[in-house]
Amino acid sequence: MSAYHPLAEQEAIDIASRIEDVFPRGAKLSCREIGDGNLNLVFHITDAESGRSLIMKQALPYAKVVGESWPLTLDRARIECEALMVQHRLAPGLVPKVYRYDAELALTIMEDLSDHVIMRRGLIELGRYPRFADDISTFLANTLFYTSDLGMNQQEKKIRAGRFINPELCKITEDLIFDDPYTVSANNNYEAAIEDEAEALRTDAALHLEVALLREKFLTQGQALLHGDLHTGSIFVTPESTKVIDPEFAYYGPMGYDIGAVIANLLLNAAGQSYWSKDEASRSDYRAYLLDTAEQVWTGFEAKFRALWNESCVDRLARTAPGYQDDYMRRLLQDTIGYAGAKMVRRIVGLAHVADIDKIEDAAVREAAQRTSLRIGKALIKENRRIASFGQALDIAAAALQG
Amino acid sequence: MSAYHPLAEQEAIDIASRIEDVFPRGAKLSCREIGDGNLNLVFHITDAESGRSLIMKQALPYAKVVGESWPLTLDRARIECEALMVQHRLAPGLVPKVYRYDAELALTIMEDLSDHVIMRRGLIELGRYPRFADDISTFLANTLFYTSDLGMNQQEKKIRAGRFINPELCKITEDLIFDDPYTVSANNNYEAAIEDEAEALRTDAALHLEVALLREKFLTQGQALLHGDLHTGSIFVTPESTKVIDPEFAYYGPMGYDIGAVIANLLLNAAGQSYWSKDEASRSDYRAYLLDTAEQVWTGFEAKFRALWNESCVDRLARTAPGYQDDYMRRLLQDTIGYAGAKMVRRIVGLAHVADIDKIEDAAVREAAQRTSLRIGKALIKENRRIASFGQALDIAAAALQG
Repeated sequence: MSAYHPLAEQEAIDIASRIEDVFPRGAKLSCREIGDGNLNLVFHITDAESGRSLIMKQALPYAKVVGESWPLTLDRARIECEALMVQHRLAPGLVPKVYRYDAELALTIMEDLSDHVIMRRGLIELGRYPRFADDISTFLANTLFYTSDLGMNQQEKKIRAGRFINPELCKITEDLIFDDPYTVSANNNYEAAIEDEAEALRTDAALHLEVALLREKFLTQGQALLHGDLHTGSIFVTPESTKVIDPEFAYYGPMGYDIGAVIANLLLNAAGQSYWSKDEASRSDYRAYLLDTAEQVWTGFEAKFRALWNESCVDRLARTAPGYQDDYMRRLLQDTIGYAGAKMVRRIVGLAHVADIDKIEDAAVREAAQRTSLRIGKALIKENRRIASFGQALDIAAAALQG
Repeated sequence: MSAYHPLAEQEAIDIASRIEDVFPRGAKLSCREIGDGNLNLVFHITDAESGRSLIMKQALPYAKVVGESWPLTLDRARIECEALMVQHRLAPGLVPKVYRYDAELALTIMEDLSDHVIMRRGLIELGRYPRFADDISTFLANTLFYTSDLGMNQQEKKIRAGRFINPELCKITEDLIFDDPYTVSANNNYEAAIEDEAEALRTDAALHLEVALLREKFLTQGQALLHGDLHTGSIFVTPESTKVIDPEFAYYGPMGYDIGAVIANLLLNAAGQSYWSKDEASRSDYRAYLLDTAEQVWTGFEAKFRALWNESCVDRLARTAPGYQDDYMRRLLQDTIGYAGAKMVRRIVGLAHVADIDKIEDAAVREAAQRTSLRIGKALIKENRRIASFGQALDIAAAALQG
C-alpha cells in the first residue's frame, strides 16, 4: 500500500475487490461515498449480482465542523478499529465485524449495516426497538466490565489503556461538553431566544462545581475502555438488531460517561416529542416508551454488571469486601446521571446539536423543547451526587416533560 | 554500547571515566558496589585526588526479596530515570542530578549523595532535619501539581501518562499493600506474637471496604505522576538538605498515595520510639517532633498546592468553580490519611518491613510497637472518609502512641 492519501472511489473498489470473504472473485463492484465529509470518508461498496456489500471508512487528516477546519490525527482510525475489535470480542453481534484494517491509509473495512437505521432518525420517526434496551445494556455491561480492573488482568489493562490514549478526541469532549457551555465561547451555538438560559448556565455556581467534578473524573478516572461517543447517532437499529458504531473517541475513562450518553439521548428525543408526536395521546405514549427504555437500559446494565461481577471478578478484595459492590454501583449510577445531564446541556447550547431538537420546525415548540432539555440536564447534573435510584432521575425528567 | 549485561566494577569505572562534567580527564577512579543486590547494582565511583564522585545505578532483570527471585522488567530503569528528570525540573535541588542514561544497559549515572544519610536511619538515631518538612512539601506540591491536569497541558499529560505505564512495579504495590495484609498469603510476614492482629485484619469487614476503595483509586485514578514509593528509605537528608531518590515505582496515580507514604513512615518511627528513645522525656519530645513534622508536611503541602492552583492552574473550571478547590483538597486529605494507614499496616504484617520497628531488640517492646502501628494504621484507614482536618489524624496517632 502507498502512503496515506484520501481514496478515490475507483481505488476504494480496487481494494474492496480483494476482500474475498465478502465478494466473489471478479465481482463487478459499485461504490458510493456516503460520509458526511466532516471527519471521514465512508465508501459503500456493493455487488449487485451477489447482493453483498461492505463499508470502507477512511479517516481524514482534519475535522470540519461548522465551517472551521482543524488538523486531527489519523491515529484515531487505529483506535477506532482496535476498539471495534475489543467490543466485537466482548459483545459479539453488537458491533460491525471488521474485515481488514490498513494503518497507512487509516482505513477500516467492515460489515455493511445499511439494512439498519440510525437510531436517532428511528426515534424521530417514532420507531420502537424491542431489542434495544437488552442489547445496549449487554454491550455496556460486557465492554465496561471486561475492560476494567474488575474483569480483566490488571496488568494487561494498564498496557491496553496505553494503546487507547486519545488526547485529541478527548480534548473535543473536554472542551465542548465540560467547559464551553458554562462560559462565553466561540464554540457555543444556541438560538437568541434562549440567551437567558445560556446566561444562567454561565453564572450557576452550584452547577459549575458539579461540572468541575464530572470533568475531573473524565480527565483522570481510567475505569474502563469507553466507546466515548455513545449517542443515538452512533447506534444502528432494527426491531431485531442493535449495532454500535464509530468508537473513535474510545479511551480509558469513567464508565458512567457511556451509560449517561445513552440516557441523555433518549431524554433529548423525549423533549423533542412535543413536535414529532402527532397528538397528546401518542406523545404521552411515546415518551413513556422512551422513559421505560431508559429505565431498562440502567436496570439491565446494573443486573448484568452485577452478575458479571459475581461470576467473573478478578479482584479479590472487590469480590469479598462487604458493601463494596453496592458502593461501586451507587457511584456508577450517580456518574451516569451526572454525565447524562452534561450531555443534554451541551446539545442545546454547545457546538454540536441533535436533530431530535434542531429539526423541530416550529420556533416556539423548538424553544420549549430546548428549555425542557436544559431543565432536565441541569437538574441531573446538580442532583447527581444525591441520586440513590434511577427512578429519581426518571422523576426529574418526567416532571420537566410534563410542565 | 553492547547489549545488556550486569556491569563488573572495572566496566563501571571505564564508563564513569567518560563523564567529563564530573571527573578530570585521566582521573584514577575507584569503585565500590554498594547496592543491596535485590533489585539493582549500585556503583559508587570516586576520584580520591579531586574528591569528586558519582553513582551508577543499574537495574537487574530480577527481584530478590526474602530469598524468592522473580523476573522484573529493565524498563523500570527508563521510568526511574525519566521520573528523576521530571522531578529535577519541577523540584530543583530535591532529587539527584542525572548525568547520563544508557537504555541498553538500564543504567543511570547520577549525583553522589553519600554526604547525606538515609532518613529512616537518621530518624532511628533521633536526628532532626529542620529543612525536611519544607523541602518534602515543596517536592510533593510541585511534582504533583505540575504533572496533573491542574498544572500542565492536559493533552501532554495523557501522552506522559503513557510513558509511565508501569504494570510490574504497580503490581507489587497492589499485591503487597492493597491485598495480602487482609488475607492469608504466602507474601505476609509477621511474628507469631501478633497472630491475633493478623487474624483481625483478615476479618474486619469495615476495613476491607475502605481498603477496596483505596485500592480502586490506586488502580484507576491517574491524577499525577507519583514517586510511588516515598518512604523514609527513599529520602536522603542532612540538616540542610533533602533529596528524594529511587522513583522506580513512578506512575500516574492518586496524589494522596505519595503524601500518605511520608506521613506513614513518620508515624512508624514514632511507634518505634518506645525503644529508640532513651527515656520517657526524650521519647515524648521526639514523638512531638515527628508529629509536628507530619503536620508541617501536610500543611506545607496544602498551602503550596493551593498557591500553585491560584497562580498557575491551566483548567478554567477548576480555577473558577466555587468550592471546587476546597472539595478537591478535602478529598486529597482523606486519600492521604487512608493511604498512610494502608502503608502502616503493610509494614507490620506484609512482606517488607521497616527497621524503625523490626530492629527493636526487645521482643515485648517490638510487639507493643507493632500493635501501636496497627492501631494507628487501621484507624486511619477506617476514618479516612470522615477526616475533615489533618489534626484529626494526628489526634488518632497521638492517642495510640500514648497507649
